[in-house]
Amino acid sequence: MKKILVVGLGLIGGSLAMALQGFEDFEVVGAVRSQATFDKAAARQAADRLTFDPAGELPEADVVVLCQDPAGIIAFLDEHRDRFKPGCLIWDVCGVKTAVMEAAKRLPQGVDFIGCHPMAGKEVSGIDNAESTLFRNTHFIVTPGPGATQEHLDLLRRMADWCRFGDVTVTTPERHDQMIAYTSQLMHVIAVSVCDNDELFSCMGFEGGSFRDCTRVAALDPAMWTQLFTLNAPALSGIVAQLEQRIRQYRLAIEAGDQEALRAMLAHASGRKKQINLERVRGDDVRPAF
Amino acid sequence: MKKILVVGLGLIGGSLAMALQGFEDFEVVGAVRSQATFDKAAARQAADRLTFDPAGELPEADVVVLCQDPAGIIAFLDEHRDRFKPGCLIWDVCGVKTAVMEAAKRLPQGVDFIGCHPMAGKEVSGIDNAESTLFRNTHFIVTPGPGATQEHLDLLRRMADWCRFGDVTVTTPERHDQMIAYTSQLMHVIAVSVCDNDELFSCMGFEGGSFRDCTRVAALDPAMWTQLFTLNAPALSGIVAQLEQRIRQYRLAIEAGDQEALRAMLAHASGRKKQINLERVRGDDVRPAF
Repeated sequence: MKKILVVGLGLIGGSLAMALQGFEDFEVVGAVRSQATFDKAAARQAADRLTFDPAGELPEADVVVLCQDPAGIIAFLDEHRDRFKPGCLIWDVCGVKTAVMEAAKRLPQGVDFIGCHPMAGKEVSGIDNAESTLFRNTHFIVTPGPGATQEHLDLLRRMADWCRFGDVTVTTPERHDQMIAYTSQLMHVIAVSVCDNDELFSCMGFEGGSFRDCTRVAALDPAMWTQLFTLNAPALSGIVAQLEQRIRQYRLAIEAGDQEALRAMLAHASGRKKQINLERVRGDDVRPAF
Repeated sequence: MKKILVVGLGLIGGSLAMALQGFEDFEVVGAVRSQATFDKAAARQAADRLTFDPAGELPEADVVVLCQDPAGIIAFLDEHRDRFKPGCLIWDVCGVKTAVMEAAKRLPQGVDFIGCHPMAGKEVSGIDNAESTLFRNTHFIVTPGPGATQEHLDLLRRMADWCRFGDVTVTTPERHDQMIAYTSQLMHVIAVSVCDNDELFSCMGFEGGSFRDCTRVAALDPAMWTQLFTLNAPALSGIVAQLEQRIRQYRLAIEAGDQEALRAMLAHASGRKKQINLERVRGDDVRPAF
């Protein structure tokens, strides 16, 4: 029987370990660090088997899925570079890909690392909130390195299908990080910025769906998002600067009482949004992703 | 039998006319301008009776609900100021209240105008999208003028209960407009600003729930939101400037690679959001509102 080693059973790792159980002829082994996570994972049968010793499993692991935080993934690749099974497939779930692909270059020949980003999540973290259905109808982004084999790409796609991802998109780490800066990281910068306003606690009774929707992801993990923002600083700061500029243009038109300019800007933007709504087929039934 | 005249059967007016049917001993009359709206409203039985002549109904209307766009509401109050039935209750659904309450001051003595804002809506407009259940579990904001009678306030609350609003909040027009600039108008400025980015059409396959949630309301009605933004310019431009400042602070921390500052800012904001989530009891089952 072949072996999938899932390292780190938090929200994403725990959900992947659950979702991957029963995939082809693989045993799913979950590696945890704390007794508390071990007990919860055991109680929920999050994996076929649990261990505190990922290093000991590596020599027989045909697939290794790294689900720690970004720094943890990079540190694991460096620390265990010579323990991976020759010919194995390693993939990760980090929300930024360039930095991880960079670290993966230090792996020995014959160890195939394919960067991945399951665009699924919740505002809450940890094994307590993990569920095997977390990935249904969400996007699975794949950034293969130059040495990625077709066999491993096919295996990865079968795993993605088994986990019920809505679609699989193959792109470059740079393109991924540029896109994610806009579609995900910027949304988090906006959400926390809105929540920093003094009115937050006095606005109850006046908030509607638009406020709840925009601020939902502000309930984030500060340490992890500090890493994600920092690892993607150039792309993120560029896109944030563009948003500042556009918001400023709206404010100036509002302050000037320039209704013509305002109507034109709103017509342009709302037209684009209505068009994207038409183009985005499966948009509405896709699960919240981060 | 007493009479409620609903003027304007768009998304909100149409939904109110549907929701108010059967309320106590009132007949619900819907006033429309176009034959197309008349036919659709008739087909959907949006009101007990339909008319093209609101002016002709005013002398016998015990309750008048103004559901046009902001400019239409203000124009109607000025044009028909002397046609309202003495002792009647007039309320409106405008998303900004100071400007409407100002216009209402020109009404004759004995005509009681109470500003209202049903915080319900959809990205789509018109009678086609109206539904009697639109207001379930949403907030109903009320800004009474100095002459508002308790009898009318009680009647208004019974109507709100009949329409299944989640709660009724009584406040001043100024307070309403300050709050709404933050909880609603700012969310719309953000959504359209995000959608103006060149990446919008290339980001499909990379977007998750946070992106869909933040940009949902960008599919707005440009003419109406131009009015809403303009009528609340001072409060809105102030809150937009605060957001620009905060977003800029995040960008500067990201560009400086100042992880300490970033973690502190994210911890502060996410902590506030997590606290508000705990405090907001009925938050999650409240319908999208604008």
